[in-house]
Amino acid sequence: MAGTVESKLKGIGISLKEAPAPVANYVPFVRSGNQLMVSGQLCFDDEGKLVAKGRLGADVSIEDGQKAARACAINLLAQVKAALGDLDRVSRVVRLGGFINSAAGFGDGPRVMNGASDIMVAAFGDKGKHARTTVGVAALPADAAIEVEGLFEVS
Amino acid sequence: MAGTVESKLKGIGISLKEAPAPVANYVPFVRSGNQLMVSGQLCFDDEGKLVAKGRLGADVSIEDGQKAARACAINLLAQVKAALGDLDRVSRVVRLGGFINSAAGFGDGPRVMNGASDIMVAAFGDKGKHARTTVGVAALPADAAIEVEGLFEVS
Amino acid sequence: MAGTVESKLKGIGISLKEAPAPVANYVPFVRSGNQLMVSGQLCFDDEGKLVAKGRLGADVSIEDGQKAARACAINLLAQVKAALGDLDRVSRVVRLGGFINSAAGFGDGPRVMNGASDIMVAAFGDKGKHARTTVGVAALPADAAIEVEGLFEVS
Repeated sequence: MAGTVESKLKGIGISLKEAPAPVANYVPFVRSGNQLMVSGQLCFDDEGKLVAKGRLGADVSIEDGQKAARACAINLLAQVKAALGDLDRVSRVVRLGGFINSAAGFGDGPRVMNGASDIMVAAFGDKGKHARTTVGVAALPADAAIEVEGLFEVS
Repeated sequence: MAGTVESKLKGIGISLKEAPAPVANYVPFVRSGNQLMVSGQLCFDDEGKLVAKGRLGADVSIEDGQKAARACAINLLAQVKAALGDLDRVSRVVRLGGFINSAAGFGDGPRVMNGASDIMVAAFGDKGKHARTTVGVAALPADAAIEVEGLFEVS
Repeated sequence: MAGTVESKLKGIGISLKEAPAPVANYVPFVRSGNQLMVSGQLCFDDEGKLVAKGRLGADVSIEDGQKAARACAINLLAQVKAALGDLDRVSRVVRLGGFINSAAGFGDGPRVMNGASDIMVAAFGDKGKHARTTVGVAALPADAAIEVEGLFEVS
């Protein structure tokens, strides 16, 4: 049975599929005390295809970047569910780290990252309001447009 | 009334203005247990103008980069004050993450980031000595030259 | 006397030398509660020489990048030993953050970062399995090919 948070996500058309497997020799999350550290998630969709490839400011529009950031956030939540069984056990989204595959000089990373942040607030309300760092990087795994990592406080 | 740490900052000519508002859908800090996570701060000055724009190793000198890093650190402290009311409640600066808007091959990020680190040590003394990661990124929000995030242990 | 973990490392030909000093005004690690935050380590070898310089996808092969990532991991462990006296006091490797000096479009960061992750698993077994974020950056200190930071849970 889905908890309150997952029901809220369903209400906006998001259902969590199986959490994507790590692409290399690490694990998707580690719990330490009441913190859950989730590995950087790429913008894979439900079929395992990248929502956007290449660089913002060159190959990818802001709108497509936002969709990609949203996919990263959904994948983070799928990992949290795999870790905890129920998203309702999240007491706070502490931090998102957003990495935007960017051409030099691309300054709109924050607008792009809102695609991820909005999902957290939609899912958790005030508990979803998080600290955030957004930077533009030269390259990402598989040439994904966006990667987002997350730190969650859990009960 | 300003605490000891803030008085020390005043002694070196730094007074904390209002903490800058986040530039998108997130919050400037989250407290979880005795940790305070502060969002990446851009190099805005007191008037909300970027201290330096563009890339180190191309458009921005090391000296200007250091001034920009210093501004990021001051903005971090303004956020800490907004979170805690008093900088004296910081028991340790745990980590700074420094992101330097860089041309390929720019290897002097650490010298630039000292502009931020020096402020922490000036403010908190031994408690201000922090772990640090400095990297050169392809782009930053608003084409800022520097962004710095911080993790603080608080009592 | 070396502990169990360090003996295991010796068995695969790795002995920890003195931990590299920070290249600027910060400290190599900070302990806060049961977390040990280790500063970003560059790919210095035992003689203080960079294992690889320049960009993956341009100047540095994947194989050399993996060797460089491995060197970063060994330097992280040297810092952990300096902090704790004994690697056996690590109860979990929580997170590695991998920064790959990359040409635009280089998508094989995860393969490169395995050079670091493999060392953690070789040293700590299941306790060495960590969350991870790998990104490609525009520049690194001293033009190093790789930088890795680490978060460890300690007892």
